[in-house]
Amino acid sequence: MTRTVIESKTKTVVIGFDEPFCVIGERINPTGRKKLAAELEMDNYETVLKDALEQVACGAMVLDVNSGAVFTNRMATDPRYADNNFVEPPLMRELILRIQAVVDVPLCIDSSVPGALEAGLMACEGRPLLNSVTGEEERLELVLPLVKKYNVPVVAISNDDTGISQDPDVRFAVAKKIVERAADHGIPAHDIVVDPLVMPIGAMATAGHQVFTLVRRLRDELGVNTTCGASNISFGLPHRHGINAAFLPMAIGAGMTSAIMNPVRQVEMEAIRAANFLMNHDANGTDWIRFTRVLDAVEEGQTFSEASVSVAQASRGRSGGRAGRSRG
Amino acid sequence: MTRTVIESKTKTVVIGFDEPFCVIGERINPTGRKKLAAELEMDNYETVLKDALEQVACGAMVLDVNSGAVFTNRMATDPRYADNNFVEPPLMRELILRIQAVVDVPLCIDSSVPGALEAGLMACEGRPLLNSVTGEEERLELVLPLVKKYNVPVVAISNDDTGISQDPDVRFAVAKKIVERAADHGIPAHDIVVDPLVMPIGAMATAGHQVFTLVRRLRDELGVNTTCGASNISFGLPHRHGINAAFLPMAIGAGMTSAIMNPVRQVEMEAIRAANFLMNHDANGTDWIRFTRVLDAVEEGQTFSEASVSVAQASRGRSGGRAGRSRG
Repeated sequence: MTRTVIESKTKTVVIGFDEPFCVIGERINPTGRKKLAAELEMDNYETVLKDALEQVACGAMVLDVNSGAVFTNRMATDPRYADNNFVEPPLMRELILRIQAVVDVPLCIDSSVPGALEAGLMACEGRPLLNSVTGEEERLELVLPLVKKYNVPVVAISNDDTGISQDPDVRFAVAKKIVERAADHGIPAHDIVVDPLVMPIGAMATAGHQVFTLVRRLRDELGVNTTCGASNISFGLPHRHGINAAFLPMAIGAGMTSAIMNPVRQVEMEAIRAANFLMNHDANGTDWIRFTRVLDAVEEGQTFSEASVSVAQASRGRSGGRAGRSRG
Repeated sequence: MTRTVIESKTKTVVIGFDEPFCVIGERINPTGRKKLAAELEMDNYETVLKDALEQVACGAMVLDVNSGAVFTNRMATDPRYADNNFVEPPLMRELILRIQAVVDVPLCIDSSVPGALEAGLMACEGRPLLNSVTGEEERLELVLPLVKKYNVPVVAISNDDTGISQDPDVRFAVAKKIVERAADHGIPAHDIVVDPLVMPIGAMATAGHQVFTLVRRLRDELGVNTTCGASNISFGLPHRHGINAAFLPMAIGAGMTSAIMNPVRQVEMEAIRAANFLMNHDANGTDWIRFTRVLDAVEEGQTFSEASVSVAQASRGRSGGRAGRSRG
């Protein structure tokens, strides 16, 4: 039984074949979010904290924290800011400390800069997920020692020094190489979460089918959990959320166990919760029934985010009340 | 390659592993539709014809025609009407003749009365699908000779004289028995479309997972196409269309090749069209792109049915125009 254990100070999330699908919130990422990058440059963490709370309310079980900001104003006066090895480590530390002060879910430390990964590992309570290692030689030798030293699970992206192969057999071979190299470092396969790389079906007609086949092989032959940047499948297509909402259940049916995605989208989250129920990973449909209260509130005019927050607050109120009664 | 060929006078639909999912419209069925049964009793076919046209516009590729009406008023004056063997054969003939006069898709002749099946077979142009045979001995010996005589494909429901087993291995064994018995009659496996029977997940937590496993086995071990009454999976649950919309892509990913369902529901049809694209059964996403015009029209305030009709009419206009140009 493959179980990838991720922890915050107080919460444990298990990614596994017999667990509900693990939704990793992708929103805290200044790449391509200029406004967020500008805020961070001003030491303003308002959007980060709002995004953290909102994603958790909407159902994120883990939050990805990416420190890939470009500080254009600081760069203009201090050339050191042109180097992400300089920018990201202190930013990652600050992001982790602030986020874990307001939410209790485990975090996923996401950077292309090894120094930022280590700064995150030092700042993070519990057992975060590290994002990521690839099959590139340099990256393997920089990241796997961190994975071993801090005893954390890691996302393994199946590209290598030759780039991203369009051949799924090559991507499988890269994943296998990473799992084997990790084993050389004493890291077990259950601490590797493979991202088989999702291509857009708009560009490659076989992309969906490829992923389903790859996920099944990764699970059956390597015994690893899997993740992906789910929305990439629909890149460039009209009504892309409809594509995503079919892709996620199909990937879950094929054995995909997590995704890095936007949890503030109703259709995708509805598809995942329904898929959990259909996979028999939602005992008695308890989670589905709770979630339909959110859908009801949306039908009454609330946004998905508002509805999620209000239902989450109501549940906390109720369970608090019950605890009070049982103590009294 | 398993290909189940169904035909009207002018159109061929292939159910197959490499084909778009075959949507069989379920609406023309007086069972549980008292108003429709009452209309039929008055020889009023307005709703039937409206349902036929609407289902085809919304994407039904085949129309199921069920003659299971109870004519309570006629029964009161003529006791012969208490017998479905008396009521259904002429009704089926009338339904088939009227429906194939207004739509050009193939039909699925659906009755528990063998006489109605044969009346339908005699009235129907092309190569209809017969619905259904079961593993019950009497039914096997009544229906398989019709299948052979008229050289048509048949839906095989995996229950037998002991009823519907909750054990998927038993349901598989029943399907296998039907396929073998059909072979004894000279009917090939590619003319059997197995319904593995979908239980509601609200009553049986393993029901979803069971179907996915069964469909895969039916495909891999018996080489047959499959169908199901898709909406049964969500029976009794709140926001059931959300469950259906995840179930269908998951079933398609597992290898299900058709369903008997309501095509006038947007979320289910959107899920199926997205799943076709993700399975690489929609070359260049042509069908998805066309369908997004329907979604756009719905966003502008039309019902799904209205939007489907108007987009279908616009496409016919365009293709007619093109043909005109190419002839000119």
